[in-house]
Amino acid sequence: MRPETAFAGFLHLASARQDKIDALTKNRITAIAFEQIEMPDGTRPVLRPMSQIGGRMVPQIAGLLLQNNAGGKGILLGGITGVPAAEIVVIGAGVVGTYATQVFLGMGAHVIVLDTDLKALEKIQDTFPTVTTLISSPRNISRVCTFADVVVGAILVIGEKAPLVVTREHLQTMKPRALLMDISIDQGGCFETSRPTTHEHPTFILDGIIHYCVPNIPGVVARTATYAYVNAALPYILELANLGIDQAISKDEALGHAVNSYHGELVNLTRLSPKQMVG
Amino acid sequence: MRPETAFAGFLHLASARQDKIDALTKNRITAIAFEQIEMPDGTRPVLRPMSQIGGRMVPQIAGLLLQNNAGGKGILLGGITGVPAAEIVVIGAGVVGTYATQVFLGMGAHVIVLDTDLKALEKIQDTFPTVTTLISSPRNISRVCTFADVVVGAILVIGEKAPLVVTREHLQTMKPRALLMDISIDQGGCFETSRPTTHEHPTFILDGIIHYCVPNIPGVVARTATYAYVNAALPYILELANLGIDQAISKDEALGHAVNSYHGELVNLTRLSPKQMVG
Amino acid sequence: MRPETAFAGFLHLASARQDKIDALTKNRITAIAFEQIEMPDGTRPVLRPMSQIGGRMVPQIAGLLLQNNAGGKGILLGGITGVPAAEIVVIGAGVVGTYATQVFLGMGAHVIVLDTDLKALEKIQDTFPTVTTLISSPRNISRVCTFADVVVGAILVIGEKAPLVVTREHLQTMKPRALLMDISIDQGGCFETSRPTTHEHPTFILDGIIHYCVPNIPGVVARTATYAYVNAALPYILELANLGIDQAISKDEALGHAVNSYHGELVNLTRLSPKQMVG
Amino acid sequence: MRPETAFAGFLHLASARQDKIDALTKNRITAIAFEQIEMPDGTRPVLRPMSQIGGRMVPQIAGLLLQNNAGGKGILLGGITGVPAAEIVVIGAGVVGTYATQVFLGMGAHVIVLDTDLKALEKIQDTFPTVTTLISSPRNISRVCTFADVVVGAILVIGEKAPLVVTREHLQTMKPRALLMDISIDQGGCFETSRPTTHEHPTFILDGIIHYCVPNIPGVVARTATYAYVNAALPYILELANLGIDQAISKDEALGHAVNSYHGELVNLTRLSPKQMVG
Amino acid sequence: MRPETAFAGFLHLASARQDKIDALTKNRITAIAFEQIEMPDGTRPVLRPMSQIGGRMVPQIAGLLLQNNAGGKGILLGGITGVPAAEIVVIGAGVVGTYATQVFLGMGAHVIVLDTDLKALEKIQDTFPTVTTLISSPRNISRVCTFADVVVGAILVIGEKAPLVVTREHLQTMKPRALLMDISIDQGGCFETSRPTTHEHPTFILDGIIHYCVPNIPGVVARTATYAYVNAALPYILELANLGIDQAISKDEALGHAVNSYHGELVNLTRLSPKQMVG
Amino acid sequence: MRPETAFAGFLHLASARQDKIDALTKNRITAIAFEQIEMPDGTRPVLRPMSQIGGRMVPQIAGLLLQNNAGGKGILLGGITGVPAAEIVVIGAGVVGTYATQVFLGMGAHVIVLDTDLKALEKIQDTFPTVTTLISSPRNISRVCTFADVVVGAILVIGEKAPLVVTREHLQTMKPRALLMDISIDQGGCFETSRPTTHEHPTFILDGIIHYCVPNIPGVVARTATYAYVNAALPYILELANLGIDQAISKDEALGHAVNSYHGELVNLTRLSPKQMVG
Repeated sequence: MRPETAFAGFLHLASARQDKIDALTKNRITAIAFEQIEMPDGTRPVLRPMSQIGGRMVPQIAGLLLQNNAGGKGILLGGITGVPAAEIVVIGAGVVGTYATQVFLGMGAHVIVLDTDLKALEKIQDTFPTVTTLISSPRNISRVCTFADVVVGAILVIGEKAPLVVTREHLQTMKPRALLMDISIDQGGCFETSRPTTHEHPTFILDGIIHYCVPNIPGVVARTATYAYVNAALPYILELANLGIDQAISKDEALGHAVNSYHGELVNLTRLSPKQMVG
Repeated sequence: MRPETAFAGFLHLASARQDKIDALTKNRITAIAFEQIEMPDGTRPVLRPMSQIGGRMVPQIAGLLLQNNAGGKGILLGGITGVPAAEIVVIGAGVVGTYATQVFLGMGAHVIVLDTDLKALEKIQDTFPTVTTLISSPRNISRVCTFADVVVGAILVIGEKAPLVVTREHLQTMKPRALLMDISIDQGGCFETSRPTTHEHPTFILDGIIHYCVPNIPGVVARTATYAYVNAALPYILELANLGIDQAISKDEALGHAVNSYHGELVNLTRLSPKQMVG
Repeated sequence: MRPETAFAGFLHLASARQDKIDALTKNRITAIAFEQIEMPDGTRPVLRPMSQIGGRMVPQIAGLLLQNNAGGKGILLGGITGVPAAEIVVIGAGVVGTYATQVFLGMGAHVIVLDTDLKALEKIQDTFPTVTTLISSPRNISRVCTFADVVVGAILVIGEKAPLVVTREHLQTMKPRALLMDISIDQGGCFETSRPTTHEHPTFILDGIIHYCVPNIPGVVARTATYAYVNAALPYILELANLGIDQAISKDEALGHAVNSYHGELVNLTRLSPKQMVG
Repeated sequence: MRPETAFAGFLHLASARQDKIDALTKNRITAIAFEQIEMPDGTRPVLRPMSQIGGRMVPQIAGLLLQNNAGGKGILLGGITGVPAAEIVVIGAGVVGTYATQVFLGMGAHVIVLDTDLKALEKIQDTFPTVTTLISSPRNISRVCTFADVVVGAILVIGEKAPLVVTREHLQTMKPRALLMDISIDQGGCFETSRPTTHEHPTFILDGIIHYCVPNIPGVVARTATYAYVNAALPYILELANLGIDQAISKDEALGHAVNSYHGELVNLTRLSPKQMVG
Repeated sequence: MRPETAFAGFLHLASARQDKIDALTKNRITAIAFEQIEMPDGTRPVLRPMSQIGGRMVPQIAGLLLQNNAGGKGILLGGITGVPAAEIVVIGAGVVGTYATQVFLGMGAHVIVLDTDLKALEKIQDTFPTVTTLISSPRNISRVCTFADVVVGAILVIGEKAPLVVTREHLQTMKPRALLMDISIDQGGCFETSRPTTHEHPTFILDGIIHYCVPNIPGVVARTATYAYVNAALPYILELANLGIDQAISKDEALGHAVNSYHGELVNLTRLSPKQMVG
Repeated sequence: MRPETAFAGFLHLASARQDKIDALTKNRITAIAFEQIEMPDGTRPVLRPMSQIGGRMVPQIAGLLLQNNAGGKGILLGGITGVPAAEIVVIGAGVVGTYATQVFLGMGAHVIVLDTDLKALEKIQDTFPTVTTLISSPRNISRVCTFADVVVGAILVIGEKAPLVVTREHLQTMKPRALLMDISIDQGGCFETSRPTTHEHPTFILDGIIHYCVPNIPGVVARTATYAYVNAALPYILELANLGIDQAISKDEALGHAVNSYHGELVNLTRLSPKQMVG
């Protein structure tokens, strides 16, 4: 194995342009997608801190977008004595949803968390006793949309496109200038009206509702994200360096799970769904 | 007294243009500056919620300005497992400093609070046991500047220009792209290098240090600020309406303290120092 | 002064029958109403623990009355994962309201506290950051009545009949079988439709709304209430015993404030408004 | 399979009358006892929320039964400044015990939790650091009985009758009018002197000790319990509807574990011990 | 006034040897006892941090003295899962008692606080809701002595010898090797059997009970104590330096209150009771 | 099997003298080392409470050793208003590290926890949100040593000598009289300069740094440790008594794992590494 033909890092092949894929094949590269390293229990140790960072950033971005000078409703997340706090709806009780909830509460907001998984809700409820938890049913989604100031979509179904939980019809029922934040945009988005935006132009308005759909949120806290990445990836980098790629991926199943191309041959094709930066 | 010659609300005469002052005199207006209503214990009931709102907004603004896309260091206020949180220095343990501290902690940051008043520090320490408190001496200011990611100046000396606690020399010792937030800018600012900025262009860089010096921060959460203002001001508005101005200001000392012009004659001139929006 | 002509304890003369008052006069009794002992700052040290106990009991009584077998809606105060907690409205941020709020939160309920006094609300907000606080205006009362599961009236205006804050019209807008608890019933009640009930028959239903209006709630935790009373009253009892009544009431203003009859002559008549057991 | 011959829901066959069992056989019904759906780790997802609700109701019932008007000692669970809180003993650190402990603490009571399983105690201790934990040995049970105001029996041994941990002899050592609450009564009870009571007549007194032994506590918060049940059961109902019973019970082991009769034939007979409503 | 004839600092004249007093007189010294600087509300700003430090040290000293190698009972303050925490009794809800309570709770111990002042107890109860509070009556003292592992005496009556609250008789009822810590020893002690000990030989055993009676506890965390002293004293030192002694003590009543000798003449003699290092 | 030839308890064969080992062989003893009972998930149920106790004792010992009279720096762990708390570095996020962190925080200290395992750090971070967590790399260790007041080494690698994480070189960079506490000393220690000390002479100074390296810390809270041991060991003792040794060790793998000699024959030799009292 010639080391120059190997790649190890965030690969995101599923959302990559064809020429990137061709380059792997042509150069007979063995490529390991660190975002797909997966433990037997389904957790993804290198992706996880990125999701944690993304989750923690959501509230400070929401706070800004609620300000008038950003086009928002002009309300303060935590309110103040005599003025109620903002109502936040978080759809998805995974890593992003949990870390977003933690900071929203820390800023004084009211938070309602929805998920289809009762067990995930119970974990959120035990961790944050003052949160309201609801089963993520169409009826409940419809209900909470009517009074939410912010709706955060933070759904991750590993290897699948995110389901659409908020439709265009819901928008008609929402308060004017309410804020939709689609953190599942890396996987196609979980709101019908989402389309990717950028850190430069983070929002657009549709039917009077503000949409924020920036992929790769942690990219703008690069220093924190880099340290977090190195902390999580280093053990695997050392493993690859010490054992060589072939031995490492055969010995460590978590690593083997992340091989996307082997000497140029694409593998694990079924996992090549839209990239899973957050979740 | 003709009611049309009366004014009651935020007046900010000290920082007003001369023509505004002339208008009061010429039209023989009785003007009550609600920001100067003052209880016997020195608290200012109508100004106070504005300071609380301003304080709570500081952390979400800081979070944004630390992002790379805002020119910041690219760090997350609360850090993440394995990556330390940001180091926040809050100078001034008054209303703004207390409310800023509360939200900074809620977002996971480390906070050091300095004040010259040991009693004010003790109150902060009792309320937030994990905060570090320090006497605000030149030596301590110099020390904390060397490692701070964010320095918040939140000093209010009623009726006086804020003292300068961070000098241009301090800037040389700070980390590159550290963030200075001068919340005393309404009173002239408490950092030597401060000059007022706007919500549109909130920052400038001097000596490699980012400066944020926007006056009237609550203005961009107008809805929350308006409700808060009405809650605080309504009792005084009702008092004026029910008793008439003359009786109200003579009967209620707190209100009398806030009279800036009486039938066109300027009064309480010594209080007409720079406006005290925050503190 | 013959000691047998003196009385010291809870007197409640204002709500007493005429023959009780006559007995004082006829027997030339000096009567000290311990519930009216009042410190210079307006606090009532012997009444206070009764109000604290009453406040803490409100939530456990509410919990029971929400059960189906008590005729209630069949909901659990704290809800459970996936099922929202009950919405509690507490009108009055005094001692009763504060202690009720503390236990409601401890049982997992959502609490909204209203008061006309912004300062009292701020104290509640600082103590219980997850509570929602609102100014007690007719508009806010109307709004919260529409979704409340429980409305607790806990208003005390010293020496005055409680104001009526919830009218019969409000009842039409409330959820069926919502629960009204009038803890100001000792002072005449703060809901238009209140009328005193008893621990034996604690509730009645009017317009589909359950009313609980039992005066002297602490009476049914007699052991706790007795210890609390002795703790609070003993210093005054000792003072009376050591100094004699005349010297005690002239030397200790707080005690003097509580004299209702002096050698049979009624005094402090203006304070003889309905008894103030709770507040 | 004709759908009308199937049953899915809480079945409680073990405690059912014979004619109910006969009906299953005679009508060749396939009956799935939702309370016996069991995950590989032993948790019972549909039973669990009922236990959580039951646990959370225990303290509000205890609070009521300690009142004088219910025949109790006349004490307040949380006490008040200067008067100690009630001493609560919870035997069993399972779901009921944990949720009861949470609310007892929220109401200000002192709680001692006993269990034979040190690991379960450690989890309680980590979650509620101020609780006292003790190994559930006869000696410790004897000791805590002497000073307890309330003893809650919340023992669940899946598929077995609850062990008797408090005997009639213990009653002699207890404080007069102490309160025994046997939440294991669905499984036969864990106090020697327990016998089932009802929500209408919830208590009886034996040897001066108040006994509360109502089975199916959540039944009186029917609304909350129904929502919680639907949340937990819906995935299984959908599974049955989508796959048909035969395929569902063969594919989903958790569901298969809950089959009590198959086309009229009784199965899983060894699991047909007394019903396990709480635990 | 010649500056060399002035003294400002901790003076402790009441417990000083006669030659020290003579030196003041002979040298016509103006001596200001910083421990006696007293605000109008009775707080002592320079003494206060010393009491806070002393209070926080009590638990770590208690922890050590409970170890077998220090002669103690061999128990851990916080216990461990399945083994109850130590029972701590703190007599006195002042500064020392409050700060000791805070750290005892932080180490996991159970704490009972007694005071004769119900208001002081309420403040403790509000700050530390899990503490038990009791009125400090002879009956309550006797009761708690029987099961306490540690009894901390932290009574300060300004300007008076501390009252004796634990007598030699109490010792007979205590558990063997229980620990008495007399933090009022600077004022003569509040246990009948106390006599001053030293940091070198901090304890003695009497009637099987371990006594710890070291005065000036903060002396062994000299660095922390020095910084705390300077923080508290500096404003007064600057005042003296800027205004001169005569003007300072006449202008600042708090300072004037602390003058012990003026140009050699002893003043404020009634305050010269035993020194009040802690309290 | 004759019962007298069996031993069950803490054995610590690896660190035992040869004659102890010979005695086992000669007397054909079956010896079960309770500290090596190990569950399938690697936890050691009988060792675990000893580690918990040890962890909780570390802060009270540190507090004492920081006092001047013990030769320390003279600082208070929790500092006081205006004086920063001590900086504590805990290396190792296992049981000892977690329990030490809990109490350090409870005493008001600042804590930084390092571990090579990101997952262990995340657990610490979730449990104690105000702690700083760092990956235990040589670079990070070097950095934190420069400002630590206390460095606690709490590394347990089951069956292996602890790695040396702090070298003699590090000592040069530390603050004078900083405190090193080597809680891994039972396994050979994790600081290069450690050598075992005793409860009688717990510390030595090397290069100006105070070393505390006492093995078996829980030995001096014998009463607590004994109860904790019995709680954890009793199920195994009963198992041995009820089944007999042979059946017990063959049926219960956790117990079988702990057999060190079988009828005098040494087994599990590879596990006979230095004793693992703490970890």
